[in-house]
Amino acid sequence: MGKKVGLLDLDLCGPSIALMTGLNETTIYRNEKGWIPLTTLTTPPFSPLAVMSIAFLLKNSSSAVIWRGPKKNAMIKQFLEDVDWGDLDYLLIDTPPGTSDEHISVAEALKHRADDVSAILVTTPQIIAVNDVRREITFCHKAGIPIVGIIENMSGYVCPHCSDCTNIFSSGGGQSLAELANVTFLGNIPIDPDLCESAEKGINYLNQFENSEASKRLSDIAGKLITQTT
Amino acid sequence: MGKKVGLLDLDLCGPSIALMTGLNETTIYRNEKGWIPLTTLTTPPFSPLAVMSIAFLLKNSSSAVIWRGPKKNAMIKQFLEDVDWGDLDYLLIDTPPGTSDEHISVAEALKHRADDVSAILVTTPQIIAVNDVRREITFCHKAGIPIVGIIENMSGYVCPHCSDCTNIFSSGGGQSLAELANVTFLGNIPIDPDLCESAEKGINYLNQFENSEASKRLSDIAGKLITQTT
Repeated sequence: MGKKVGLLDLDLCGPSIALMTGLNETTIYRNEKGWIPLTTLTTPPFSPLAVMSIAFLLKNSSSAVIWRGPKKNAMIKQFLEDVDWGDLDYLLIDTPPGTSDEHISVAEALKHRADDVSAILVTTPQIIAVNDVRREITFCHKAGIPIVGIIENMSGYVCPHCSDCTNIFSSGGGQSLAELANVTFLGNIPIDPDLCESAEKGINYLNQFENSEASKRLSDIAGKLITQTT
Repeated sequence: MGKKVGLLDLDLCGPSIALMTGLNETTIYRNEKGWIPLTTLTTPPFSPLAVMSIAFLLKNSSSAVIWRGPKKNAMIKQFLEDVDWGDLDYLLIDTPPGTSDEHISVAEALKHRADDVSAILVTTPQIIAVNDVRREITFCHKAGIPIVGIIENMSGYVCPHCSDCTNIFSSGGGQSLAELANVTFLGNIPIDPDLCESAEKGINYLNQFENSEASKRLSDIAGKLITQTT
């Protein structure tokens, strides 16, 4: 959609963005302004994504970042201040689940740009996941971060053998929560084995499976996000 | 299987054990030895489970525990020292994903009982989840915690309409990792919508669906765990 987007992986103990973007075996460099984010190999009409993750600084995928909060906070600050993102329309910050150090640190570090910051909440349909997002809503309210909306992932599964759709993990939890919390419901994305496989292989799913139901839903959600934030 | 088991939920920011055990609307009490864990309503042949979770101390399911590491650590210590578990055969400690405060604090707090402590690692089949567990293995090695084995959850899905099994999230990742890391593979559990629904409603799945494939696998894994740890 022609936007310049950066993606910052803040799951320091379980970074998976590198694998998902096909950048897991790439070396990272620094210039005088800081780290230079890596760029995905994307074919038009999609623009490349600038990516930064702690995975780029680790030796291999078995390396564990066994860090308490203060060390994670220092790294988060460095990621926010010491990466040469260049000129971006959007910086997506992917946080791990929870309402702890990572979330508090990001909220504090971006306080001076509060007008530019908002949250996108992602849930799966199960009540257990919805309850986690309910707590994230409470967090956003307390931290004064406006919520763009809620996305429901893993929402139903179409069997490739009989084309019948089953709601493996129940359904509608994200939408009900959005209504209850008076937050926009941005849409739902069905389970698609091709999407999982693309994520594991670092393949651009929207390029490869552009006519799939999940691609349509993802594009629709991206469109809504742009409309809501401009 | 006649064992006295306690379950301690250490996911302080996303506690879900209370809902899963049907104890989410119960009040907790203290005696002079500390908190008295709640007990599940279980019908024979299964024994009741003693459960402790921060969810019992929160007002409602929207309440967010917005805590940095040190506060979480203090709570974890209290959960380990200040709960009157009575006489238990096993205390299962359920941690959130990652290798951070919760994991470091538990490892440190139980150092004096190192001979009694071991880890069970749970993954789903995706490479992304397997990589997370790979990092947990590194953590266990560094912390000197022996690993009982790896369980693969969400391993394949049997469509209720055509009975064809599809590997929604690829498959075999847990088993391959176990072989690679020279750790016992304890077994895999298929996706079963009844299991998800039971967890959301706090119903004992083994009681209600004792002849299902997932029940058989769960019982099999429990048997192996008892054999391996006695």
